[in-house]
This record gives sequence, structure tokens and C-alpha cells, in this order.
Amino acid sequence: MKKRVLTGINTTGTLHIGNYVGAIRPAIQDSRNPDVESFLFLADLHALIKCQDPARIERSRMQIAATWLACGLDPERVVFYRQSDIPEIPTLNWLLSCVMSKGLLNRAHAYKAKVDAAVAAGRDPDADVSMGLFCYPVLMAADILMFNANEVPVGHDQIQHLEMAREAAQRFNNLYAPADKPFFVLPQATGGSDVEVLPGLDGRKMSKSYNNVIPLFEGGRKALDEAIARIVTDSRLPGEPKDPDSSSLAVLYQAFATAEETAAFRQELCDGLGWGDAKKRLAEKIDAEIGPMRMRYEELMAHPEKLEEILQAGAKKARAIATPFLADLMHAVGLKSFTTAPAAEGKKKKAKKAGADTLFKQYREADGLFYFKLVAAGKELLISSGFESGRDAGQWIGRIKTEGLDALAQAPVTKCTDATDTEISEAINRLQAE
Amino acid sequence: MKKRVLTGINTTGTLHIGNYVGAIRPAIQDSRNPDVESFLFLADLHALIKCQDPARIERSRMQIAATWLACGLDPERVVFYRQSDIPEIPTLNWLLSCVMSKGLLNRAHAYKAKVDAAVAAGRDPDADVSMGLFCYPVLMAADILMFNANEVPVGHDQIQHLEMAREAAQRFNNLYAPADKPFFVLPQATGGSDVEVLPGLDGRKMSKSYNNVIPLFEGGRKALDEAIARIVTDSRLPGEPKDPDSSSLAVLYQAFATAEETAAFRQELCDGLGWGDAKKRLAEKIDAEIGPMRMRYEELMAHPEKLEEILQAGAKKARAIATPFLADLMHAVGLKSFTTAPAAEGKKKKAKKAGADTLFKQYREADGLFYFKLVAAGKELLISSGFESGRDAGQWIGRIKTEGLDALAQAPVTKCTDATDTEISEAINRLQAE
Repeated sequence: MKKRVLTGINTTGTLHIGNYVGAIRPAIQDSRNPDVESFLFLADLHALIKCQDPARIERSRMQIAATWLACGLDPERVVFYRQSDIPEIPTLNWLLSCVMSKGLLNRAHAYKAKVDAAVAAGRDPDADVSMGLFCYPVLMAADILMFNANEVPVGHDQIQHLEMAREAAQRFNNLYAPADKPFFVLPQATGGSDVEVLPGLDGRKMSKSYNNVIPLFEGGRKALDEAIARIVTDSRLPGEPKDPDSSSLAVLYQAFATAEETAAFRQELCDGLGWGDAKKRLAEKIDAEIGPMRMRYEELMAHPEKLEEILQAGAKKARAIATPFLADLMHAVGLKSFTTAPAAEGKKKKAKKAGADTLFKQYREADGLFYFKLVAAGKELLISSGFESGRDAGQWIGRIKTEGLDALAQAPVTKCTDATDTEISEAINRLQAE
Repeated sequence: MKKRVLTGINTTGTLHIGNYVGAIRPAIQDSRNPDVESFLFLADLHALIKCQDPARIERSRMQIAATWLACGLDPERVVFYRQSDIPEIPTLNWLLSCVMSKGLLNRAHAYKAKVDAAVAAGRDPDADVSMGLFCYPVLMAADILMFNANEVPVGHDQIQHLEMAREAAQRFNNLYAPADKPFFVLPQATGGSDVEVLPGLDGRKMSKSYNNVIPLFEGGRKALDEAIARIVTDSRLPGEPKDPDSSSLAVLYQAFATAEETAAFRQELCDGLGWGDAKKRLAEKIDAEIGPMRMRYEELMAHPEKLEEILQAGAKKARAIATPFLADLMHAVGLKSFTTAPAAEGKKKKAKKAGADTLFKQYREADGLFYFKLVAAGKELLISSGFESGRDAGQWIGRIKTEGLDALAQAPVTKCTDATDTEISEAINRLQAE
């Protein structure tokens, strides 16, 4: 089976050539790998967390869809869709909410950064936190697990959120799937495409917040030339030898040129090429690559109905996967049509055989320790102390299952408030008989 | 327009006659009111928070659907559906997440109770809290606002959650709707049906956790008789005069009898009716009402395809409302087809005119008192003391709006921690100029 790679695309703001070189171009290249099944989506439900200006969301969503297509994304080859067109995702979001612990989300970087800033300003820790922001990693987990992505290219700041998606997948599998047939694969974070960071006009990372960007398509060739004219250089005159590393020019050039072309360009600067001429050469080089794309971009922007058709087709492909998969998941948690056969085979049969859903559940708490509990017919009977490792917890479970009540007497467990001794000994006996 | 009343029904566990008398019977009576449009739904997405046993959810959901129908709910007259059949609800859940502040949810009673219990046990505050539990009031808001319910009958413990739904509605309206055309009506909590609390076998409130219930249908007439036989009485013999209030018998009888019949029953006890005979009379009385329902219940449970058909028809009615309404909401936040006309101007223009969302919000707290606060651009500036009536709060708002800062100086309000005097006076001036 092909490897599935999933990429979410922000839909606030417009794009600059740093985004193009660092994210769009490599992702499109990756999408041409015949061993890869690429899922790319406009994360427009996520956009609502940051942006409550409908006109901006609307415009940006369209611009960004048009940009990716203009840059060469082939919607026939990949699954390219808007998150908001897949109603299965918010539903999965809820299913995952019910298996994810709040303690885990409390530790999310993006959330903690907001809290720290508020506390530093002497305000309520949650003053600037919406539920959307706090729950964001759950929706991200739903995005990924909905399509069982094997790999998710993410920046460093998203690695922790991906870890949470793995955690959610694992918990859901443990609770609801037969051991040999998990619902979710555990997604891997991959280095992602933002490894290549392009410098901006002033040499710092190209970023809208530094106001140092070269726009990708916006403003046309004119805006490209104007931005490039603003690249910071020293004041050496034409003819004077220049240090190619004293400005962003050469690095920007390299992003659009072959190694040989770059070497030649650097040599010319050393030999005295004027900054003005060098800038013209850079503009030509960039425009040679993005000029034709810009024409396609403008064409697409002028025909929203074409964009719409492409994204509808993408949604159709995505839902061909999501709809039946969500039905399986709903079935697994107990939410299914009354007329389908009684619940799932695997997990349940196993449980039935062992007698009315008697089982040990192993889990990890927010304190980092490993616990287990004994549950019969949905009722909690025993709960263990915390163990340093999951293996220790597992060994006690093993002993109790084989040695029964004798082992239980020595185990570090406490009885749940409303559990009776009879219930506990019956449950243990059932498990031992298994 | 008819008043819309929405009732969510738990789908964990089975029902006893306390549920029947306290909730089901009055709700079904209410649903026959020709001025009311009743929405009743099986809250099966909520059920996942508490119960991770799929078989139990599945069974309980069917039993509870069958119970309501057997008790006389007319699915032609009301909108009766499973929450999980309405995918618009989890999507709205996300839209509301993005406008609700986490600080609000931190104060939810159900969440705080879990935290207090964990802290008391020396554990991590969030040790027992899933994201589902924490986010539960958001989903509840989505349940209510999806159908623009005017009234929601809730128990005392849910009043605060309903207040959160109002807050979410208000914020969404403020952000995205033209002032004269809000998307959401603000739902009212009504006394609810759980006012009538039936005593159990031992005189305490009838509740599964006290193990003192009389089952509604489960176990048939036999189980009814057996439970009634267990009602606690003193040991007076037949012929001895009895205090009708010394046992639950008379109160249980009353719940199924006319005032005259109850008076006669009580008199007979005073006159010496034996407890055994009195219990037989009670069983007959209850069975006269629920016996025919039990037959319908068994018939429905034997025909899941009929239940399914009824609930599918209910989902169709519900979605006939939810689907176009959600499309409007998605449109409003900026998520719409690229081929529909650019986003509505109304709201944005207006907000600009009145000055960045400056407004008074009126609300009722869990303490039963009425409050108002002054909010500008989403930031809380002032908060009032509690008033006995909403009118009192409204009068202060009116005075401040007309008389401005002079009235404010006399008003019973406190400044919010991070609000400045300048922000407050500017906000008041804006409102006065309006």
C-alpha cells in the first residue's frame, strides 16, 4: 500500500516566496512521488481560531487554493480538499475528545505560550484563550486520523501536537478495536518542508511579521521588482568586489537556480557586479519560474467556479474514504443503526467470552505514571497505584490473571467506592477462567 | 411562531418509574401543547463521555428510544432524533468553540466537581477529566442553538451550562450577524420536569445510585411487584392504624392516582389497611398506567427496524432545519462555496459604525440573580452586582446608555481587573452617541 502523507495548509493571509520555496514547492514535488498518496487540505476550520473576519477568510482561502494549483499541484493525482467540506472531521473530533485527557492538552505548547503571555501581563491565565485554541490539537488529530495518514510533515512547533494525535489513536484503538485490527495507524511526524528557510529583504527569516517579504503572486511582476529593489545591501559601487554573503541576494538566487548558476552569480558579485544589476538578474530568475504560475493563478482567481469544481471533486475523493471509515468508528463506539447486526465482532466477542466485558484497562495519567483498573460490565471495580513503567503495571495484570485472588491480595490496588467484594472476586474468577 | 422546546435524553442506563413520573410523562404532556414545537433527542454523543462500553450504549439507546415512544411520545408531532444522526451538530460545536472563551468553561460545575474530587484525593486536578467532559457545555450549546430552541427544561445543575449556551449565542451573533437579524435566539432555562422527585423504596430520592428504584419496564410486571414488595414500612399489622407518611407508599400511589383516589388510599391506611394489601393496590395502580405501555415497549424492542424507521424520519425532519441553517452559519464565518456571492456586508459595516462591538450583555447566573456587563471588542470592562429581577438590570443599562458616565458613577458595578478607566469611558461615550 502507498504511504499516505497529509499536509494541512493555513488559510489566513497571502503567500510570499518564502512559503513557496519552503513549503509549497517541496510539498508539490513530494506529491509526485509514485509511492506516496498525498492529502493536502485547506485548514479552514482551524482558521476560525485566529481570524474572525469572514471576508478575509473567504479571500485567503480562495487565494491559497489558487496558489497551490498554479504552482503545479495536480488535483488528479492528490486528494486536495477544504477541511470544512468534510463533515466527518468535526464528528471524529468529538469521538477523539472523549478519549483524550484534558491533562494532555493542558501541556500543549501553543496553549501554554498564550497562558505565559497573559500571566506575564498580569492577566487571567486563560484571558486570551478560546476553546478553539485549546481544542486545536484534537481537531488536528481528527484531520490526520480521518485519513490514517502515515506521515505528516510538520514544523518543530507541531511535533508535540502530532504526539497527541498518536496518543489519541492509541487510546481509541485500545478501547474500541480488536488487538489485531486497530482502526488507526500511528502517524509519524516528518521533518517537513519548512526546513528550508528563506531569508527576507533584511536577512532575517522571511516573514510577514518582519515586513520583509517578497510577495509570490500578489501585485504581479511590478511588486516582485519593487520588493527585490528593497533588499538590503552595503553601499559598494558597481565595479567594487562584493561579499556575496553580505546580503540575502545570493541565497535568494540560489533558491531558484542550479548549483552552477549560483556559483557563477556569486563569482560575478566578487568580480564587481553592481547591486542594481544583481537585483535585476535575481528578479528575472525568480520570474522565470513563477511568471507562468502567476498567469495560471490570475486565470484561476478570475474563475472561482473552476476552483470550486476542483475542490468539490477533492471533497468527493476525501469523503469516499471518510464516510465509510467514520461509520465504522461510530459502530465501534456503540452508535449505529438499530438494524445492523449487534455490535462488532472482534473486541466484543472476546469480551463476551470472558463474561460480560470483564477486563483490565491500562492507561497513563497526567502525572506520567502508569495505572490499571479492573472493569466489569462498564463498572470500575479496582484501581491500581501509579507505576513508573507500563511494564510493571502489565506484570501485575498478568499475575492477577494467572494466579487470581492470591495475587490480587498482594497487588497495589484499591477498591472503587461502590464495588463489592463479590463483584471483584467474580470478575477475577472470570478472567482467570479465560 | 410556535415556541421551540428542546429536551436532551441521556442514553446510558435504563429507566425507573422515578424517571417516568419526573421527566418522561411531563415532557410528553408538554409536547402535546399546540403552541409548542418539541425537539427531543437521544444525547448519544454526550453518552460517550461517561460510557466507553459500546454494547451498553447501543442497548441503552434502543431501550430509551423504545421507552419514550411506548410512553406515548408521538413522533409525528415532535421532532424525535438521535444526536449522532445530525452531523451538523459537531460542526456547529466547532464554530462555537471558536467564539467561546476557555475561562468560561473552567468555571463549569460538572468540570469543577471532578477537579475538586481529584484534588481532595491528592491527585492531579485534571486526572479524571477527558476533553469530552471539559467540552461538554460547548456541545450542549450546539445541540440547543442548532434548532434555535426558545426553552430548554433543565435541572438545577444545568442552568449554568445553559447560561454558557446563551453566551455563545450572543458572541456569535455579535461577531457575525447584522444587529437586526441575529442568527441565534437566546435560549431560556425552564424549571424542567425533574421538579417532581419521586421517593424510592427507602424514602430517599429514587435513584439507581441508591439502589432503591422501581423499574419502569425491565423485568415486566414481576419485577414491578418485587420492587414494590421491598418498599420499607413499619411493622404495624393489618387492622392497626397506619401513618400514610411513614412510608413512600402513599406518595408513589399519588403519582399515579387522582386526588380523590389518593385521599381514599390514605384514609384506608389510617383505618388499618395492611401494608401487604396496600402494596398490591399500589402495584395495580401503577400497572394500570404502565402495563399497556410495557406491551408497546416490548413490541418495539422486538422490532428494531420500526424504531430505526421512526428515528430516521426524525433525523430527516431535524436536518431539514439544521442543514440550511448550518450553511448560513458557515457562510457567515467565511466558509462558503467560491461561487456564491461575496460575504454579507451587514454586520461588518454596522460594527464599524457603533464602534467595535461595544455593548451591554445581560445574563442570569447560577445564583438566580440577574447581572449585566459592559463588553468592548470582546473584552469585559464592567460587571454589575446581582439584581433580583432582569428589569432592574435593564433599567441600569438604560440609564447608563442615556445619561452616560454620570449614571455610571452611581451604578452598582465593578471594574474588571484588566480594564482601564479610559477604555470604560470611551465605551460609554460610544454607546451614548449611538
